[in-house]
Amino acid sequence: MSAIITLTTDFGLCDAYVAEMKGVILGINPDARFVDICHTIKPQNITQAAFVLHTAYRFFPERTIHIVVVDPGVGSPRRAVLLRTPFADFIAPDNGILSYIIQEVAEKPVTGSTMKLKPGATAISLTKSKYWCKRVSATFHGRDIFAPVAAHLSLGRPPEDFGKQINTLVTMPLLYPHKTQNGMTGHIVHIDNFGNLITNVGEQDLPKKREGIAISVGGKRIHGLSRTYHDGAGLLSLIGSHGYLEISLKNGSAAGFLGVGTGDQVRITLQTGGGQ
Amino acid sequence: MSAIITLTTDFGLCDAYVAEMKGVILGINPDARFVDICHTIKPQNITQAAFVLHTAYRFFPERTIHIVVVDPGVGSPRRAVLLRTPFADFIAPDNGILSYIIQEVAEKPVTGSTMKLKPGATAISLTKSKYWCKRVSATFHGRDIFAPVAAHLSLGRPPEDFGKQINTLVTMPLLYPHKTQNGMTGHIVHIDNFGNLITNVGEQDLPKKREGIAISVGGKRIHGLSRTYHDGAGLLSLIGSHGYLEISLKNGSAAGFLGVGTGDQVRITLQTGGGQ
Amino acid sequence: MSAIITLTTDFGLCDAYVAEMKGVILGINPDARFVDICHTIKPQNITQAAFVLHTAYRFFPERTIHIVVVDPGVGSPRRAVLLRTPFADFIAPDNGILSYIIQEVAEKPVTGSTMKLKPGATAISLTKSKYWCKRVSATFHGRDIFAPVAAHLSLGRPPEDFGKQINTLVTMPLLYPHKTQNGMTGHIVHIDNFGNLITNVGEQDLPKKREGIAISVGGKRIHGLSRTYHDGAGLLSLIGSHGYLEISLKNGSAAGFLGVGTGDQVRITLQTGGGQ
Repeated sequence: MSAIITLTTDFGLCDAYVAEMKGVILGINPDARFVDICHTIKPQNITQAAFVLHTAYRFFPERTIHIVVVDPGVGSPRRAVLLRTPFADFIAPDNGILSYIIQEVAEKPVTGSTMKLKPGATAISLTKSKYWCKRVSATFHGRDIFAPVAAHLSLGRPPEDFGKQINTLVTMPLLYPHKTQNGMTGHIVHIDNFGNLITNVGEQDLPKKREGIAISVGGKRIHGLSRTYHDGAGLLSLIGSHGYLEISLKNGSAAGFLGVGTGDQVRITLQTGGGQ
Repeated sequence: MSAIITLTTDFGLCDAYVAEMKGVILGINPDARFVDICHTIKPQNITQAAFVLHTAYRFFPERTIHIVVVDPGVGSPRRAVLLRTPFADFIAPDNGILSYIIQEVAEKPVTGSTMKLKPGATAISLTKSKYWCKRVSATFHGRDIFAPVAAHLSLGRPPEDFGKQINTLVTMPLLYPHKTQNGMTGHIVHIDNFGNLITNVGEQDLPKKREGIAISVGGKRIHGLSRTYHDGAGLLSLIGSHGYLEISLKNGSAAGFLGVGTGDQVRITLQTGGGQ
Repeated sequence: MSAIITLTTDFGLCDAYVAEMKGVILGINPDARFVDICHTIKPQNITQAAFVLHTAYRFFPERTIHIVVVDPGVGSPRRAVLLRTPFADFIAPDNGILSYIIQEVAEKPVTGSTMKLKPGATAISLTKSKYWCKRVSATFHGRDIFAPVAAHLSLGRPPEDFGKQINTLVTMPLLYPHKTQNGMTGHIVHIDNFGNLITNVGEQDLPKKREGIAISVGGKRIHGLSRTYHDGAGLLSLIGSHGYLEISLKNGSAAGFLGVGTGDQVRITLQTGGGQ
């Protein structure tokens, strides 16, 4: 079966780690096809990987299999999991990297140890070693567990074969902005290749009427939203191609100009009345 | 149909932008196959992208579809175009990025607003939104317009279906060296991974007899052409694997040694008589 | 035939060189499929490429074709070779880059100019130009010789068609650690994306009983082996996912912390008795 398997890792571009995973998969399903989503996630940066995966996966065809390996706890008792949703399959360490996906398929926001998934979604703890590589290293489960499980899954094997169903998954806090008296506070969750600052403030978090909106970040204040990167001059803000509020510098890098990074705060004020 | 689609962008390697384009294409043509030409074009460097694409595309099979997204004007009235040539298809913003290709398929050099293409070549303005993604962002036409158009094209849909034929395309000046009294002046158009300086001086721009040739760049002067990178010692010049004059430093980086960059001048003198 | 072809080069990620090789291959075998092993081998670093290839190739299916292009001698009389082993095929310059593979398929360790391969293994000098690109550049045999040969090989053509069998191949010295009075001395052969130091000391080079083992590197001394990257604190050593002794820094880069690089020494002492 000519299944599509994507890979998102923090393995970088200098090693053969990604290639070894592909080799293992092709040994099980010779017709598997790969799309690399990103391999330059900052080492062990679960938050960044979670965001990148969540913005990208929805553009893939239904039933694409997404492997995510940012796995600082490899070899520890952290679980390896398969999350099936009505749209796609995700194979990852259970360390919060699937937080956005989990929230999308949960009946209500997951908090603490309770999780109820919508119909068609299921979570499996990968425990059946018969679907792993024969020799499992203590340090590279991406190749020795996740890859072969993805390959067998791509051949049509049902999720339940890989282990037992589980009722909780680790989620990260702070995926969403929180409201303030006159607006909200969000965070920078990603800085792209152009130096654009991508925040966790979604288009739907903002009011329909945005006349008085102002964004404060890195000691600067931006008034109003632009439509494209070349509207206006200097610093500007806009709704980016994934539906999130972005800060951009025309013909330059907003990240470099402002000296900010992922995790830094972005304050949004919504003034519908007078005053600035 | 198992079409080949290449991608050349300035998206870098840290984001999911390229993967999203591939996801969109696979959703329309599940059998499409990808070759990444280059994603580390310097942000918004149309000249570099034009050169890299033009040196690479001829090594692909006939009817390969090449998508190029270096698109500083995205969201502005700049056109999105499809250029069909007798050999391949190109989908790109109309910002000069296809200049080399256009000159190759034009009846005579394109200047200003007149362009007459050779038989079998046609240029289309991409205006039929029924072949685009349902929701088109203002900032990422690579994913929302170019990718789905490439996918539909790869399924055999004729170019005319995507919009109306156009008679002009934007071209960049200065693709070629200009003659001087005793030779010519060219420019560095690309610096490769080894620090080799690749110029816009083609093999065919040089005379057959090259005994007295000298190349001046970055304050240094090189006499004669070598055949390979390991002939001679120190700085050397040769005709590179794409047929262009290159300057190389044996066991080192010519770019680093000379402190020059793309856009810098290279002077070639052709002395058939005496003198130095 | 849907053959798998891998590529390992020092071409970096800024040029179209890799893409051109793929284009040439697809022009001969439209069904070939690619896996990139690594393109960021340090320019002309044959040792690094040899190690990366050798750790990765065994995870690919049987009869995968591996092209390796780290080729400082391109255009010189160095040979281009095809090494067929019972498991896979390798196409590379004959400059030592296949050393690990050669030792694996040699009847006994190769020294100097004598080499006897095991049954099922054969080495061919690529001399039949009818399987090359029509126009062969002096500087890019990866595209003009290795790629088309790999493509024809992937279509089922036997190795002997590409040139005549040869009885020697270039090998590098010092692939393995050497014994000392109370242990052994190895070298760092690779530094991965996380800053882990990978040595040429294999699991099988160490005794089964490792109670008193100590590793000295960069002026520091590590006692005992850990099982995973998160056991213990600070500097630790373990057997990595390829079966080699590795030095790692918990939540950091061992390479950065110790200020060491590839080629640097690692001393292992095996104390089974008293003393420290």
